[in-house]
Amino acid sequence: MSWLDVIGSVAGGLTTLAFVPQVVKTLRTRQTRDISTAMWLMFCAGVALWLVYGVVLGAWPIIVANALTLVLAATVLAVKLVNRKRDQACGGTRTSLNQ
Amino acid sequence: MSWLDVIGSVAGGLTTLAFVPQVVKTLRTRQTRDISTAMWLMFCAGVALWLVYGVVLGAWPIIVANALTLVLAATVLAVKLVNRKRDQACGGTRTSLNQ
Repeated sequence: MSWLDVIGSVAGGLTTLAFVPQVVKTLRTRQTRDISTAMWLMFCAGVALWLVYGVVLGAWPIIVANALTLVLAATVLAVKLVNRKRDQACGGTRTSLNQ
Repeated sequence: MSWLDVIGSVAGGLTTLAFVPQVVKTLRTRQTRDISTAMWLMFCAGVALWLVYGVVLGAWPIIVANALTLVLAATVLAVKLVNRKRDQACGGTRTSLNQ
């Protein structure tokens, strides 16, 4: 394994595992007001396409990293979608409280 | 350009551009309570390593996608770090308001 492979592996590990603390925070607090629905929708769609790309190529590192990322990101998106109406309804109160 | 190249390009476009709506929301509202500091720190570090990886390989698609993602993700992280003390201090008030 070259040092370039090591950099790529650490990079892939970080950009996948980064979603773990967000999932933990979101499941624990159930608070999603500051999270953008559009971001997580687009991100999940993109990761799903990377997964298709990996499957077609038969590239296991792409498959494993994106399957894991998709599960994590879809969890955050699911909580956000459940909260969406509440998040929109409480926006004014929240903003005035925190400013 | 094969259809696999198209899938890869759309996937890369989505996972990069996904951060635009989050940056817009975060800069507009300056609210970051529900955003995990650990996620954005790890994600920025990982994307920076992907950038190094692309530079070493001389791979322009990896360089461009990750440079753009890094600027976007670092913007969200910067606002979160500025807000961090306030986010921690107001946690109780916020939770009781929204539940």
